[in-house]
Amino acid sequence: MQKKSLFIKACEKKNDDRPPVWIMRQAGRYLPEYRRVREKHDFISMCQNPELAAEVTLQPIRRYAMDAAILFSDILVIPQALGSPLRFEENKGPVFDKPIRNPKDLEQWKENEAIENLSYVYKAIKYTKESLGDTPLIGFSGAPFTVAAYLVEGYVQKRFQVIKSMIFENPTFLKQIMDVLCETTIAHLNNQIKAGVDAIQIFESWANHLSCEDWKTFSYYYIEKIIKGLDNPENIPVIVFSKGSHFLLPHLKPTSADVLSLDETCPMLDMAKTIHKSVALQGNFDPALIYASPKIIEKKVNEHLVKMKNFKGYIVNLGHGLLPDMDPEHVKVFVETVKSF
Amino acid sequence: MQKKSLFIKACEKKNDDRPPVWIMRQAGRYLPEYRRVREKHDFISMCQNPELAAEVTLQPIRRYAMDAAILFSDILVIPQALGSPLRFEENKGPVFDKPIRNPKDLEQWKENEAIENLSYVYKAIKYTKESLGDTPLIGFSGAPFTVAAYLVEGYVQKRFQVIKSMIFENPTFLKQIMDVLCETTIAHLNNQIKAGVDAIQIFESWANHLSCEDWKTFSYYYIEKIIKGLDNPENIPVIVFSKGSHFLLPHLKPTSADVLSLDETCPMLDMAKTIHKSVALQGNFDPALIYASPKIIEKKVNEHLVKMKNFKGYIVNLGHGLLPDMDPEHVKVFVETVKSF
Repeated sequence: MQKKSLFIKACEKKNDDRPPVWIMRQAGRYLPEYRRVREKHDFISMCQNPELAAEVTLQPIRRYAMDAAILFSDILVIPQALGSPLRFEENKGPVFDKPIRNPKDLEQWKENEAIENLSYVYKAIKYTKESLGDTPLIGFSGAPFTVAAYLVEGYVQKRFQVIKSMIFENPTFLKQIMDVLCETTIAHLNNQIKAGVDAIQIFESWANHLSCEDWKTFSYYYIEKIIKGLDNPENIPVIVFSKGSHFLLPHLKPTSADVLSLDETCPMLDMAKTIHKSVALQGNFDPALIYASPKIIEKKVNEHLVKMKNFKGYIVNLGHGLLPDMDPEHVKVFVETVKSF
Repeated sequence: MQKKSLFIKACEKKNDDRPPVWIMRQAGRYLPEYRRVREKHDFISMCQNPELAAEVTLQPIRRYAMDAAILFSDILVIPQALGSPLRFEENKGPVFDKPIRNPKDLEQWKENEAIENLSYVYKAIKYTKESLGDTPLIGFSGAPFTVAAYLVEGYVQKRFQVIKSMIFENPTFLKQIMDVLCETTIAHLNNQIKAGVDAIQIFESWANHLSCEDWKTFSYYYIEKIIKGLDNPENIPVIVFSKGSHFLLPHLKPTSADVLSLDETCPMLDMAKTIHKSVALQGNFDPALIYASPKIIEKKVNEHLVKMKNFKGYIVNLGHGLLPDMDPEHVKVFVETVKSF
């Protein structure tokens, strides 16, 4: 049996060594080698081409040797596979030209075809694993609320007026949409597990736009349902990133997640002291730290690692993803400071 | 001596009646009578003209008879009065064409002239009080971090790259800017108190963009300094609205504020049960509720008021301000539902 990696040991809160490090959106536009691939292929084609997805997944690992890789894919492949045409527009982000706003719109979906349509993801996982060596691979999906927000809004605007109207006026229909997304997400994650991923992360990027009460109904409930619905014979770790809302967890029963990925507003050390015994923590450096000078990056990372030293379930990451204008040399300093701690 | 209003009693946690209600940005563009004034005057001129500011402050009170009025003004009048030229640009918001980015930029400031330059605010308070009758008037200021963010960025973009660079690379200079803003804010609030406001609200609208650690240093610290620096002989209530960060308060020593104004992500009822005994709570309906139908508005307001019934220090408000495209009739339903509870 393979020796467990630092990353998996930290997810299981059994890491006596330095904490492992990876970064959200580590395979992305800040890397010149990514931009070279992207020049020739659009974003969706890259996701759908297993060779390209594997290549791009591996790029940051080759450059920085992070302690985990995350599959190059997108949270919106699920509604796309269900039958909602998706495109990306400069300055607007993902766009669904046929948003789901009433029961008739659901007729565009073919639920029994979704998983077959997503087979390119499972192939990408196999190709990636073949070249990845001992580095664990993280598979992922979006949480149903965040995916539904894109889907019913058409494209995401700050006010979330369409999905909030649904929450107030027609929660039953919104739940109907989210139930389909939830079931498809469970099947998608199960297939990622079968294809060989070593951990799963669920992204709830818009959680911070929900009122506390609605968060319980439309976010927490569905994330719990997904985790409990997984067919996970080897108990690979499940990480939940729920932006701007982990402070709510102490008010609820403990999460079923193995790891909570915290954004930068969350007090990591206090969370480490108060969180349910079984939960590991990931995060939560301010992404803006990557804009700072190498000297400051080194100083801030070391200071934080000293504070977290006695917590065996800590995985270094940012509070959110890397941005296209970030300097790859600064990312290097961030990763190497952790690795040489 | 005048009988204490519902609003003041609730701020003091001594209200046995229905909770009082007012709404952030209640004097604003959603009102046709506001737009009629605005057609003839730009935003800054309206702030600087005491008659117009008083008129606009009174508009929502005439229409809805809220339990408190809030002075029509802006959080950026302080840097403007210090000497930084301010203008408003459609789709961009407030713009400082001469942002403060290095010590030389501070030469544009004349600290000893700021309060005299702000005399139109104190005049507006006097004019408003003359027509307001028994309704209490809330004065306000921005918290130094939020004001500094506008000032050093030039105009606010989502990434806050300039002010975050300062936090990392030159915190001493940022504190120097914030110290001046803090002292001027204290003087400005003291003058508002002298002019007759019945309560003060401090707005930290960008608190949710600070990491937990930086929030302590750049937000919490300065807000505490302001409250402790007030010359407040009659102990008028001080309300703090710190968007996206009140969950941090239990991790710190209790706030010096009398009232915390919570945004919609905060669990109001749990906060009411756990918060320091002396603190009242304001908020925190999802602003999107105003987009919902009158029937749903009524239902949601009533449900929440039932839950909060035994809390003597509760003031109804939204989690953030009213928006220009909101329907004045829906605002009416919101206010009247509270008033007839």
